[in-house]
Amino acid sequence: MLVEIWSDVVCPWCYIGKRRFEKALERFEHADQVQVRWRSFELDPRAPFRRSGDMAGHLAAKYGLSLGQAQRQLEHMDAMAAGEGLDMALADTKPGNTFAAHRLIHFGYSIDPGTGAATKEALLHAYFVDRVAISEPDELARVAASVGLDGAEVAELLASDRFADQVRSDEREAAELGATGVPFFVFDRSFAVPGAQDPDTLLAILRRAWQRSHPNLEVITGPAAAVCDGDACEVPA
Amino acid sequence: MLVEIWSDVVCPWCYIGKRRFEKALERFEHADQVQVRWRSFELDPRAPFRRSGDMAGHLAAKYGLSLGQAQRQLEHMDAMAAGEGLDMALADTKPGNTFAAHRLIHFGYSIDPGTGAATKEALLHAYFVDRVAISEPDELARVAASVGLDGAEVAELLASDRFADQVRSDEREAAELGATGVPFFVFDRSFAVPGAQDPDTLLAILRRAWQRSHPNLEVITGPAAAVCDGDACEVPA
Repeated sequence: MLVEIWSDVVCPWCYIGKRRFEKALERFEHADQVQVRWRSFELDPRAPFRRSGDMAGHLAAKYGLSLGQAQRQLEHMDAMAAGEGLDMALADTKPGNTFAAHRLIHFGYSIDPGTGAATKEALLHAYFVDRVAISEPDELARVAASVGLDGAEVAELLASDRFADQVRSDEREAAELGATGVPFFVFDRSFAVPGAQDPDTLLAILRRAWQRSHPNLEVITGPAAAVCDGDACEVPA
Repeated sequence: MLVEIWSDVVCPWCYIGKRRFEKALERFEHADQVQVRWRSFELDPRAPFRRSGDMAGHLAAKYGLSLGQAQRQLEHMDAMAAGEGLDMALADTKPGNTFAAHRLIHFGYSIDPGTGAATKEALLHAYFVDRVAISEPDELARVAASVGLDGAEVAELLASDRFADQVRSDEREAAELGATGVPFFVFDRSFAVPGAQDPDTLLAILRRAWQRSHPNLEVITGPAAAVCDGDACEVPA
């Protein structure tokens, strides 16, 4: 079974949803037969290299909130993250454009699925826990090195548009599948699940998708079901 | 999509069913993505090498029919076969044990799928249209040569029990899938269809099986579907 998860590296619900999905997968009886593929989705493809100002101020301005309301929203999300064992401090994150980070994830996948997945996790951790400026080539190179990606190749990638097509292809597919936000989970291209659902819900969907791709045999008989049996053949009336 | 068809080479409904399935497949819009695999099923594994007496007499004795009734049953089946373009004359067939014929089909598949399928068709044609004694090594060798199987290898196969395990494995699977007679069609291990159904029915099942293995995306939303969207993230109440 293939589970594809569209997500961005600066999306808190994506990291929270990742932990919840991992919990669901731990409890899933066919986990050893599940392949997970992290797919690219930029929340804001036009995001500047580095956004000025702080998160609370940005949120307040965008939604017409007071700074205090915005701060409380961020703290609420921090608390949700803490519930999943993630030490987020959203007010201190350093958002920016994530296109290069996504190209790096695709580079990881070009090595092997494990490296792709490790690159994704390392980038989320760098952004949310280490509060790293996610657009900075030096920071990206450091994260890439931590998962064993080749330094020279990473430098070349960061200086070029290598894997840009793969990022755009993921994003095109997301749109085709109806994703307008992330995380967006797709099970065997059969079920789509938007949002950071809780582990119980995700586990139930894993089981439902498994059932759909491994259905019980359904026997269909009809009026003209003429068979031979033993050494004789029935002749329908 | 994989369609597996259990059948015997001495089973008239199998040959009729084969033609009906071929007609259905011709009309199926995804025919180029269908892989067909003919699987072994001996109607009578204890059948003697060559059965003495004629078909009508055998049928009459077995079912307590008069010879005339038995002959009419055979003629009725001949007429059904003629409806599918098959020049059968069941009363003149020369039944016998089909184990070696099935081993030959597996040998064909060991070369390539096309040769496996051609061996199956050639054996049915030899038995029903050419009225060949299906157990005779010389006849089997002739049929094998007609589909390009290597003569020396075929001679060795006929003198050994090569591919016996594969025939038995097919038959074990048939039992596990609930087949008690043949033909027995299994679509993607998802739908089982016993009997020589008409082309319209088989086409409908091809479409249903295709639909099941290529379902439309179903979107599942739940109360905790927290997503990030644009550069902001909703916080569920």
